[in-house]
Amino acid sequence: MTTKQIPNVDLTTQANVYFDGKCVSHGFTLADGTEKSVGVVLPSELTFNTAAAEIMECVAGACEYKLAGSDHWQTCSAGQSFNITANSSFDIKVAEAFHYICHYG
Amino acid sequence: MTTKQIPNVDLTTQANVYFDGKCVSHGFTLADGTEKSVGVVLPSELTFNTAAAEIMECVAGACEYKLAGSDHWQTCSAGQSFNITANSSFDIKVAEAFHYICHYG
Repeated sequence: MTTKQIPNVDLTTQANVYFDGKCVSHGFTLADGTEKSVGVVLPSELTFNTAAAEIMECVAGACEYKLAGSDHWQTCSAGQSFNITANSSFDIKVAEAFHYICHYG
Repeated sequence: MTTKQIPNVDLTTQANVYFDGKCVSHGFTLADGTEKSVGVVLPSELTFNTAAAEIMECVAGACEYKLAGSDHWQTCSAGQSFNITANSSFDIKVAEAFHYICHYG
């Protein structure tokens, strides 16, 4: 099941633009103060670094990802998610678009 | 004054991707049912068509825009906005990034 909408959030209006626009996200805050973001990765091969641990939840499209220290590419598509540990990284390949919610911690 | 955050909205998780990613937005709905979006236009020269009338409110960065039927390029930067009538169009030039809220109607 995919998360189509997230109710009752405070939305940050300025986008986060990464990798010359290959990844664009908007941050938001839940009523309990939890910070998350929604974003999209466009066709590209990128490496993301994490500070905090993250859970990437795919809401539309798909990607292939490879976690730091792994040789194994895995697929993540709508309704699936993957976890990245803090102070780590992952490689991502996107053919069309990967729409996601980024959960921290 | 710029609108940094919009409280208490229902956020659509899937992005709208226009012009091969030169414009990316996320839709949201206010408590009263009003639909809007937040987005960013990256460096480009584009022509947008409107169906409903729109107000483009700049929250960060800047653009130059030219409304259909005008020969006059105007600047819109953070805290400013411009109106586009329904079933019309506007040209936009962005040098760095134009972060906006799109209000309809």
